[in-house]
Amino acid sequence: MNQYLLNGKLTAKPGHQDALAAILLQASHLVATAKGCRLYVIGTDKADSHSVYVTEIWDSKEDHDQSLNVEGVRELIMKAMPLLDGPPAKGQELEIIGGAGV
Amino acid sequence: MNQYLLNGKLTAKPGHQDALAAILLQASHLVATAKGCRLYVIGTDKADSHSVYVTEIWDSKEDHDQSLNVEGVRELIMKAMPLLDGPPAKGQELEIIGGAGV
Repeated sequence: MNQYLLNGKLTAKPGHQDALAAILLQASHLVATAKGCRLYVIGTDKADSHSVYVTEIWDSKEDHDQSLNVEGVRELIMKAMPLLDGPPAKGQELEIIGGAGV
Repeated sequence: MNQYLLNGKLTAKPGHQDALAAILLQASHLVATAKGCRLYVIGTDKADSHSVYVTEIWDSKEDHDQSLNVEGVRELIMKAMPLLDGPPAKGQELEIIGGAGV
């Protein structure tokens, strides 16, 4: 099965980008050892001072979906939600066909 | 310095997605050992049968830019150009602030 890549973007209410990023960094530590997690990095875009980007690679979409059950993850989601400027947009899902580094 | 993430999307002329993907896979092998290359994966989106996606992570933007000088890379770019449905769009550049897997 091909690996699963998810490009997510979360936009914070004004002034809350750093707090949102801190929560996502905590999440990355929780899922780092989850089954099938290959990459979970948090990024920012110089041109956008409100959003935080999450780039994830998992062995499968199922492994990604299971990550919501990792202890502490739902609590972090609950902490992040009030910081968001609206409901999170659906991420871009890609199927990895090859490459280097994972 | 924070690592550099680049989300690129290349759209092929109808019928050339596989050929374009094959060239990008060759490129990934060439740059896999380049200085600062952490990730260079090729993906496709089920909803888009024309495009090929490249997700790259480098120790710095400079390392990324230098990858154009890796032997064989420019030749692959020349092979890919005629397959593209227009000039390549500028990729999305992110600065990685942390996470897992790189």
